[in-house]
Amino acid sequence: MALSSYYKQLVDQRRELHQWPEPGWTEFTTTNYLARKLKAWGYEVLLGTKVVKPEACLGRDEKEVQAGLQAAREHGVSEEFLKATEGYTGCVGVLDTGRPGPTMAMRFDIDCIPVQETDDPNHIPNKDGFRSKHNGFMHACGHDCHMSIGLTTAKWIVDNKDSLTGRIKIVFQPAEEGVRGANAVATSGVLDDVDYFLGSHIGMVAKYGEVVIDPWGFLCTTKYDVTYDGKPAHAGVEPNAGRNALAAACAATMQLLGIPRHGSGMTRVNVGILHAGTGRNVIPAHAKLVMEVRGETAAINDYMSEQAMNIIKGCAISYGVKYDVRTMGAACDMKNDPEMVKMLREVAGTIPEVKQITGEANFGGSEDASLLAKRVTEHGGKAAFFVTGADRKAGHHQFNFDVNEPALDVGFRMFTGMVKKICGRK
Amino acid sequence: MALSSYYKQLVDQRRELHQWPEPGWTEFTTTNYLARKLKAWGYEVLLGTKVVKPEACLGRDEKEVQAGLQAAREHGVSEEFLKATEGYTGCVGVLDTGRPGPTMAMRFDIDCIPVQETDDPNHIPNKDGFRSKHNGFMHACGHDCHMSIGLTTAKWIVDNKDSLTGRIKIVFQPAEEGVRGANAVATSGVLDDVDYFLGSHIGMVAKYGEVVIDPWGFLCTTKYDVTYDGKPAHAGVEPNAGRNALAAACAATMQLLGIPRHGSGMTRVNVGILHAGTGRNVIPAHAKLVMEVRGETAAINDYMSEQAMNIIKGCAISYGVKYDVRTMGAACDMKNDPEMVKMLREVAGTIPEVKQITGEANFGGSEDASLLAKRVTEHGGKAAFFVTGADRKAGHHQFNFDVNEPALDVGFRMFTGMVKKICGRK
Amino acid sequence: MALSSYYKQLVDQRRELHQWPEPGWTEFTTTNYLARKLKAWGYEVLLGTKVVKPEACLGRDEKEVQAGLQAAREHGVSEEFLKATEGYTGCVGVLDTGRPGPTMAMRFDIDCIPVQETDDPNHIPNKDGFRSKHNGFMHACGHDCHMSIGLTTAKWIVDNKDSLTGRIKIVFQPAEEGVRGANAVATSGVLDDVDYFLGSHIGMVAKYGEVVIDPWGFLCTTKYDVTYDGKPAHAGVEPNAGRNALAAACAATMQLLGIPRHGSGMTRVNVGILHAGTGRNVIPAHAKLVMEVRGETAAINDYMSEQAMNIIKGCAISYGVKYDVRTMGAACDMKNDPEMVKMLREVAGTIPEVKQITGEANFGGSEDASLLAKRVTEHGGKAAFFVTGADRKAGHHQFNFDVNEPALDVGFRMFTGMVKKICGRK
Amino acid sequence: MALSSYYKQLVDQRRELHQWPEPGWTEFTTTNYLARKLKAWGYEVLLGTKVVKPEACLGRDEKEVQAGLQAAREHGVSEEFLKATEGYTGCVGVLDTGRPGPTMAMRFDIDCIPVQETDDPNHIPNKDGFRSKHNGFMHACGHDCHMSIGLTTAKWIVDNKDSLTGRIKIVFQPAEEGVRGANAVATSGVLDDVDYFLGSHIGMVAKYGEVVIDPWGFLCTTKYDVTYDGKPAHAGVEPNAGRNALAAACAATMQLLGIPRHGSGMTRVNVGILHAGTGRNVIPAHAKLVMEVRGETAAINDYMSEQAMNIIKGCAISYGVKYDVRTMGAACDMKNDPEMVKMLREVAGTIPEVKQITGEANFGGSEDASLLAKRVTEHGGKAAFFVTGADRKAGHHQFNFDVNEPALDVGFRMFTGMVKKICGRK
Repeated sequence: MALSSYYKQLVDQRRELHQWPEPGWTEFTTTNYLARKLKAWGYEVLLGTKVVKPEACLGRDEKEVQAGLQAAREHGVSEEFLKATEGYTGCVGVLDTGRPGPTMAMRFDIDCIPVQETDDPNHIPNKDGFRSKHNGFMHACGHDCHMSIGLTTAKWIVDNKDSLTGRIKIVFQPAEEGVRGANAVATSGVLDDVDYFLGSHIGMVAKYGEVVIDPWGFLCTTKYDVTYDGKPAHAGVEPNAGRNALAAACAATMQLLGIPRHGSGMTRVNVGILHAGTGRNVIPAHAKLVMEVRGETAAINDYMSEQAMNIIKGCAISYGVKYDVRTMGAACDMKNDPEMVKMLREVAGTIPEVKQITGEANFGGSEDASLLAKRVTEHGGKAAFFVTGADRKAGHHQFNFDVNEPALDVGFRMFTGMVKKICGRK
Repeated sequence: MALSSYYKQLVDQRRELHQWPEPGWTEFTTTNYLARKLKAWGYEVLLGTKVVKPEACLGRDEKEVQAGLQAAREHGVSEEFLKATEGYTGCVGVLDTGRPGPTMAMRFDIDCIPVQETDDPNHIPNKDGFRSKHNGFMHACGHDCHMSIGLTTAKWIVDNKDSLTGRIKIVFQPAEEGVRGANAVATSGVLDDVDYFLGSHIGMVAKYGEVVIDPWGFLCTTKYDVTYDGKPAHAGVEPNAGRNALAAACAATMQLLGIPRHGSGMTRVNVGILHAGTGRNVIPAHAKLVMEVRGETAAINDYMSEQAMNIIKGCAISYGVKYDVRTMGAACDMKNDPEMVKMLREVAGTIPEVKQITGEANFGGSEDASLLAKRVTEHGGKAAFFVTGADRKAGHHQFNFDVNEPALDVGFRMFTGMVKKICGRK
Repeated sequence: MALSSYYKQLVDQRRELHQWPEPGWTEFTTTNYLARKLKAWGYEVLLGTKVVKPEACLGRDEKEVQAGLQAAREHGVSEEFLKATEGYTGCVGVLDTGRPGPTMAMRFDIDCIPVQETDDPNHIPNKDGFRSKHNGFMHACGHDCHMSIGLTTAKWIVDNKDSLTGRIKIVFQPAEEGVRGANAVATSGVLDDVDYFLGSHIGMVAKYGEVVIDPWGFLCTTKYDVTYDGKPAHAGVEPNAGRNALAAACAATMQLLGIPRHGSGMTRVNVGILHAGTGRNVIPAHAKLVMEVRGETAAINDYMSEQAMNIIKGCAISYGVKYDVRTMGAACDMKNDPEMVKMLREVAGTIPEVKQITGEANFGGSEDASLLAKRVTEHGGKAAFFVTGADRKAGHHQFNFDVNEPALDVGFRMFTGMVKKICGRK
Repeated sequence: MALSSYYKQLVDQRRELHQWPEPGWTEFTTTNYLARKLKAWGYEVLLGTKVVKPEACLGRDEKEVQAGLQAAREHGVSEEFLKATEGYTGCVGVLDTGRPGPTMAMRFDIDCIPVQETDDPNHIPNKDGFRSKHNGFMHACGHDCHMSIGLTTAKWIVDNKDSLTGRIKIVFQPAEEGVRGANAVATSGVLDDVDYFLGSHIGMVAKYGEVVIDPWGFLCTTKYDVTYDGKPAHAGVEPNAGRNALAAACAATMQLLGIPRHGSGMTRVNVGILHAGTGRNVIPAHAKLVMEVRGETAAINDYMSEQAMNIIKGCAISYGVKYDVRTMGAACDMKNDPEMVKMLREVAGTIPEVKQITGEANFGGSEDASLLAKRVTEHGGKAAFFVTGADRKAGHHQFNFDVNEPALDVGFRMFTGMVKKICGRK
């Protein structure tokens, strides 16, 4: 196996980032790390409302943001930097080669998920001492790898600036989990001058040695927070006087999981979190469901949403409780540009470690890169998303998730190869 | 209305105690308040393992205990006192009249419930400025009143010591909510020399002006914490790989609420709290149910428990998840001693504010005073429990619960009247 | 044990009636049997709309009525008799002593329940050859015993007519199961001249040797038939196009069983029958629930009904189906007249086999004799209901239910004793 | 539109067959109709165990079979014919051209589904007077069309025998609904000499003018009948004594509908019928679920079955009832032979009415022709299945399903075209 000369950087950065995972909209320590590097390498770094439109943020919890800010301070992030973020995480590094040419954007997502990393001593982050130090949180979806690939690509661009043309934007997007962040990045306009947009995910449907250059099956999705409000009562003395929000939430969950499959394509539904009640002997007066639906097309996703809304309302009536539904995230489907698929095939063909180039393959999940791609294609740009195969220890989002690090090198060479294709001096 | 000369003390103490409600096993600030007063009035004060048997504590959460200790420190409770508690709340004040006579114990419970007090400006604690300062907690079951009645009774005893005989124990029991505390107080042996045991609750089935001297329907109850452990997975990519603990908990809840009524008597079942899941797009791998069953008799309560255990196991099998059940509290039924009922009737007859003396009436709830009564009657002592009527603004445990304060005076005169009956010099 | 001289008649009739049990509103063969005997003994026999008000019939299924008529024809019941019934079962035998005196009515219910009698060879109806010949139906609630007691009482009255005064009405009421029949009998006016009304049930809460003269706990009840109508669809091709009535019915059932217990008294809820769907691979478009609620008081029964209606509606909304609710039966609570309780105590005291006379005891079920009692007391009459203890082999309504036949003799002597008390020549 | 000269026969036969739809395994009247025609045209007709292996019959209900036999007798089917069937429906017509050549089998399914045909006067079977006379049953899946196409193809073959070679088998398969019949036909060996196997379905994913020559997505499926057996009890007197089979069935249904989607492909689950309980006030002791699962692959179908079995068992434990599961039907996935796909494309190209020839398209359902195809390919034969587009008035299995009859002509020309391709004299 011939790894690139940037491999050590790829691994070191990934392992540093793995140790302080931050959930969406709170990635202040992470953003500081990324911005500091970009700036050091000569990039103009856009922060705050230049890259995130506040009104378009979905699923942003002010309390969590404050906790993220506090943690960043404890990690020594300067007040000056935090002020520059205006409270919004993520950043875009811009490099102008000074030579006429296309504007190319590459997107890397930066948040983690709320899973406690395994204690298994054979788990490599445990064995090699780079396990998450943020209790209850873990880079269990590979965004640490994405960021390291992004940073190393940024470094390579600087190292090879003389052979490049046009402008390059390295987009570090917050809050991908829950497909919350892209909507605000797209709406900010930071991609409105972009001619070529490229994104990638590590692992997923592909093993190490495989690259999927035309994945499909980016499920459309909508994320909801649902609350039920009833009436408390003493569960022994007068249970009849209560209105049981917990029971309404359980009934709704049972019904939501049973929304009929759709004859025309894949569907998904999940109630990821349910919190209800205050005391053992109190009829629970409050319940909250954190949920999502998905559909293979916008129409199927709409079908799922409509069924879910009926159920949520029906259970409120059954139990005599009030309900409230808030939209917390959204993503759409996407389709790769054929020219870029061709380029991806050519680039992958130059990497000896890539033993299999897969055309179409089912991605099977949602990605809010789809919203960024949509923004770029709406003004005439081209967009593509590929999957960098990796050997996983466990499925994404699981507490023992891990990938083989050589996969980062493949990802890095795919991105830099595409930079050469698109921005290389002819 | 002729209130006793102790009325101001009753109200002042109640309002002080109302402002810092503490949940069961964490009542360090409260215990300090009670112990300090008892000691000042000349009582011997028993603390820690002298009144609570550690091994017999039910539903004691070490983390909450630590938080309670920390809060006590912030309220200025001395390290010396906290050390004396050995980490266990509650106290017993002992007064020996020095004259031969019976040993009489009176029990007052001291914990609060986790309900956020209403913001309604007409709620008297808001209007008169003594609302709970402990966010998310409230004396919504009247234990603030119970403690003030207990303290004032203690003061009256000191003031009238010369006319009394025997020994008197003022028992301030922790963790009545969830019927967690009495088991440990009973097991400690602090009541093993008691000839007469007396307890009371304010409000409940009786309005102001009424005293219920022979309540029945103390439901037997068992409290359980149930956990389900499954397997997380990405809800979009491979939902089939997960094992959904949240779904198991919801299915169990639906089934638990539907345990068949019993032909031979009252039953109850409540899932008071349900917490499950970690992220919107993760199949939830963990769920916790905080629940209870009740039955009019021990046999009916056992029936409820057996059905619940079947359901909890069945849902684990349905969803391929593991489960764990822990017993968190217990209470039994109780029957008043006829001699003491007669005394209660006579005492109530001397209080002009008592317009109605009710014999038997359905209490309709569980009370772990029943376990203390059982301990006393097992060695030949007598026990009784009465209800001091009060006008309530809302049902017990509700966020706008409140009682009319003159009811405290009736309770105080009932207790002191019983002290005169039992320990008065003949 | 000294049995009355009527014991053989009691047993013979009961065993004959046991062999052809008929469900409510279809008891044509049974009514013919009863009417023929009454007429032979000199009673005036009222039939059809003289004893049943058609508009007030609850839960009467025309198809079943036709089947009952057909079966009666096959049993050789004459067309003349069937015509006299006008299609309505039940009859009232009237005997006028010709002497001034009170009008006394005794009520006996005549229908069976849809349970297949056990094959157990030790089951006495099997052993002694009088098992049900009506497949799927069984006198599993003892109405065969009630009828035989009623008939034998009628015979005794004729035999003792000279020592009696006033008028006597032997009321054979149809469709007690499901509390469907009494409403129509009450409304017919046949009891509007009655001064004393007496009813009884065999078994229930009392063993052989015990008579309960003041039972309470006659739960109020309402019976509903609920239908859901959705939309069929191919379950493989486009499950999303269906609207699943079966799922709505299942969700409703789970929720109905979980209607919170009431703090003020007993409640019950049962979904006794659920029929839904037409084919394995068709999304079920139709579902029917046969259900009931009960409550210790009218207010509690109303609470149950209200909760049930919310649930039925809520589940319709959840699943996008239509619903319909029809009231199929009703009964109310009842309280014995103190004078009649005294008489019952005296009569029971004269029967050596009665070892225990119980005053108050929880009846624990619903009885539409309550509606007849209500009709009688509304115009100033007196009413009572007692329980004739019996040794049961299994609970009422179970497929191996049976009672010891000497219990019939006790019932017979209770009724005739009451006739002597009320109508005996002084 | 140029229809073939056989169009009248196609329509007439279809309309005759539409009027007496028969559910699977009871198609005696239908089989008689088919066999009579085949015999009249010179076919050798195989019946009974020559075409159906008794031990391999799935989902065959003896009571229904008897009813079907009885109905056939009432329709004038001769005892001689019924005897020849040996009680098993379906037949195979065999025609030997006498010239060497391949053996070709064509399969047409003959059963109906249990849906009541609409009363809508605009529904063509109502308007034109050929509506189903079999109450509660309807050819709502187009098998009447399939049979008419099969018969007309058989007639065409006879008419064109001189230009054909080899042997031809017209297979009229019983009990396709519920995928019950093919297993027994395959196992009988009647296809073991077949070189080319061809089947088709009308309508489904294709509109009139379209033919799908390479459909995929034949979901694997398994059909189950599940019973729960509990214990009856009086729902008012002692609900606790019962063990509620209906509740177990409802809980299972809710859980079954919620079996998690699979990340690797389509799944389906349906509870098509639920029958439970015997009386309103009896705790239901018996329940039956008629259900199915489906999966895009055998592995996914196995996943669905495994989850279902866990749920069925778990709910039995929850409710303290016994359970039993019986397999009632099965089908697998299938993949068309490329040579036959090529032929189908060519044949379709010769039919002017076919405006669109679709290669791959999602069939979206299960077909037990898959089991016949599997049997043929296992011994080296080739197999294919195509979809004959039709304009539908409503989805398959719906009460107002209907297709435009010219679609039958397209189907007929596809089959006869394939006969010419495969058996035509070169």
